[in-house]
Amino acid sequence: MADLLLRNIRPYAGAPTDMLLQAGRIARIGKGLTAPEGVAVEDGRGDIVLPGLVEAHTHLDKSLWGLPWYVNEVGPKLLDKIDNERMNKRALGIDPYRQSARQSIQSSLMGSTHIRSHVDVDTEHGMWGIEGVMRTRDEYRDIVDIEIVAFPQSGLLRRPGTLELMDEAMKLGAEVVGGLDPCTIDRDPKGHLDAVFALCQRYGKPLDIHLHEPGEVGAFSMDMIIERTRALGMQGKVTISHAFCLGTPDPALIDPLIAGLAELDIAIMTTGPASRPAPPVKKLLEAGIRVCSGSDGIRDTWGPYGNADMLERAMFIGLRNNFRRDDELRLGLDVCTCQGARVMEVAGYGIDEGFIADLVLVPGETVAEAIVTRSPRRRVIKRGKIVARDGVSIRTAP
Amino acid sequence: MADLLLRNIRPYAGAPTDMLLQAGRIARIGKGLTAPEGVAVEDGRGDIVLPGLVEAHTHLDKSLWGLPWYVNEVGPKLLDKIDNERMNKRALGIDPYRQSARQSIQSSLMGSTHIRSHVDVDTEHGMWGIEGVMRTRDEYRDIVDIEIVAFPQSGLLRRPGTLELMDEAMKLGAEVVGGLDPCTIDRDPKGHLDAVFALCQRYGKPLDIHLHEPGEVGAFSMDMIIERTRALGMQGKVTISHAFCLGTPDPALIDPLIAGLAELDIAIMTTGPASRPAPPVKKLLEAGIRVCSGSDGIRDTWGPYGNADMLERAMFIGLRNNFRRDDELRLGLDVCTCQGARVMEVAGYGIDEGFIADLVLVPGETVAEAIVTRSPRRRVIKRGKIVARDGVSIRTAP
Ligand SMILES: [Zn+2]
Ligand SMILES: [Zn+2]
Repeated sequence: MADLLLRNIRPYAGAPTDMLLQAGRIARIGKGLTAPEGVAVEDGRGDIVLPGLVEAHTHLDKSLWGLPWYVNEVGPKLLDKIDNERMNKRALGIDPYRQSARQSIQSSLMGSTHIRSHVDVDTEHGMWGIEGVMRTRDEYRDIVDIEIVAFPQSGLLRRPGTLELMDEAMKLGAEVVGGLDPCTIDRDPKGHLDAVFALCQRYGKPLDIHLHEPGEVGAFSMDMIIERTRALGMQGKVTISHAFCLGTPDPALIDPLIAGLAELDIAIMTTGPASRPAPPVKKLLEAGIRVCSGSDGIRDTWGPYGNADMLERAMFIGLRNNFRRDDELRLGLDVCTCQGARVMEVAGYGIDEGFIADLVLVPGETVAEAIVTRSPRRRVIKRGKIVARDGVSIRTAP
Repeated sequence: MADLLLRNIRPYAGAPTDMLLQAGRIARIGKGLTAPEGVAVEDGRGDIVLPGLVEAHTHLDKSLWGLPWYVNEVGPKLLDKIDNERMNKRALGIDPYRQSARQSIQSSLMGSTHIRSHVDVDTEHGMWGIEGVMRTRDEYRDIVDIEIVAFPQSGLLRRPGTLELMDEAMKLGAEVVGGLDPCTIDRDPKGHLDAVFALCQRYGKPLDIHLHEPGEVGAFSMDMIIERTRALGMQGKVTISHAFCLGTPDPALIDPLIAGLAELDIAIMTTGPASRPAPPVKKLLEAGIRVCSGSDGIRDTWGPYGNADMLERAMFIGLRNNFRRDDELRLGLDVCTCQGARVMEVAGYGIDEGFIADLVLVPGETVAEAIVTRSPRRRVIKRGKIVARDGVSIRTAP
């Protein structure tokens, strides 16, 4: 791995400095470093340097990225969207390998160096999604690290055979067990949660469960997750994605849940959704809870939005949580970087000597400015190597 | 005014056609038009053509655009923000003329051809804001039409002398009377509303009132506005901006208000705010209510967000209202174009023969794609003249 000297960069928009990257790591940080013989020098032109952005919740297998525009005429119910997708996936050309490769490159161009992707497991498509995203994970390892969650998108117990496929996905190499709305989709919270926690136990893997259920019913499901996390000693190994119920404006409902999450180090993922109740990010962080974020679905049959930009996501989190002060905007960035890395248990993440050189360079006076302008990504660096320059990746999409 | 033949453009992403612009208007639309002698031809390269975007609510006089980054450390209360701004405006270099010119050029670059701007009127600065934005309105008339709302940002009755200044602003040439939270800021709803409606009557001008008040108190203020609109025969002449109270999820509260708004043709302005209750756009449109939108404050002492992009605003409205279908996204665009023009009573607005040639060209397969990708503005046309090409304006900022 070639070494690299980055000159004139500003960590978190602080004072200009230099950074020597060796063997994929940040070997030295300091002003006026000299390049060892044969080491390339890159002029950072005073750009801000941030740790690689962390896309902690997306669906690589189902994006329509790069396909003709999909005119969305899908019905209003959740099951309309689930069934529409499952039944039309092949006809629309949503090949999980190709589409996940396309989105991964887009993610890398936007400065993400780590992705956690939920991947559909259902009786219609079996391991098609898992195998496709695993292939992308292997083939594009040079630009991004991908972690795979086996995800029962169409329901776990309501569609017999799915649980066996989830087991197969974990055997194949999925790194995280997924789940989905134990009450409102599977309509069997005990059955659903016992099943996914059993998979976690069998394979020694963490859990990341989609929980869209709002208000009281979401709180009930969350409480059952907390209960099982405690009983099975899975502290620090559980993430609850969306957690809309925490957006209920009722401290009597959410404060006990927050206490339980904090006690058991259960992480929360929020996209900063504009149209749904959303977990209060600042309050959760102040309670010591890890909070990560993600793009969720990007331009898929569910909806047309998304561009894999986690700097824009930090802005969305700011907008959703009414962050206006510069120190508040920094919280949004923290969620999209360090907090995400903590949730994904990325080792050696951050800007310090000895850490892995996963970095992104953006122009701007302050971090807040970089967030609200969604500054262009001038350089993206993965394990010490420049993998994107001014919007051009070293990899081309299939 | 030079004439222009636009070739190979797609109105609202429909079939490719040509468009002849003469004397500032759309003279002809049709395939295979030939350019009259001496008329320049512009190749639209198959771009989508939309009517000029309408920025129906912003604050041109107070943006920090083009100034050094303002590190926001302002306190949490509304009055903290109001007082901080009024007391620091001069020291920060927020010259209303220069700043409004800068934002107007940015707006034009983003494809807006019409702006309604609230402009602060207070005892600290008198007519400084109004005179500055009037100068910009006159000097930049070639790229954008600006309508000025005299806006008592610091309160109307709670700061003696402000009402007289509002009167002076109307005499100077402000086109719309503004107002602000009659209960929670001025703490005298009858006094405040009687005063602003009296100004409307005296000068024969419409009203556009900021109403942030949520829930029951906002509903009370809105009801008093409806009452006065009816009593004074001001049908079609009143806009209520923000109207967070309409985001209350209680039909018993909001349905009577919606009926009143529809009866009296009172318009609603919403930014599609992610962190506040928001008026339900589809429901209001279905009731026949005009709904417009705007950026509100752009990078000011209140908050760092905003770029004057009304195509992005259409996306925000979509995200806030959970619009997923292509036909729903079109509603968001309608709000940021035709609906805004109806609220501002722009004559001859739209894409049809005989209408004023205020247009924007963007690449994309569909309108929904142009919205979610926030397509680059390839050409912006004001009264038949190209005023911006690929992000470069014909005007330079002071
Ligand atoms: Zn998801
Ligand atoms: Zn405003």
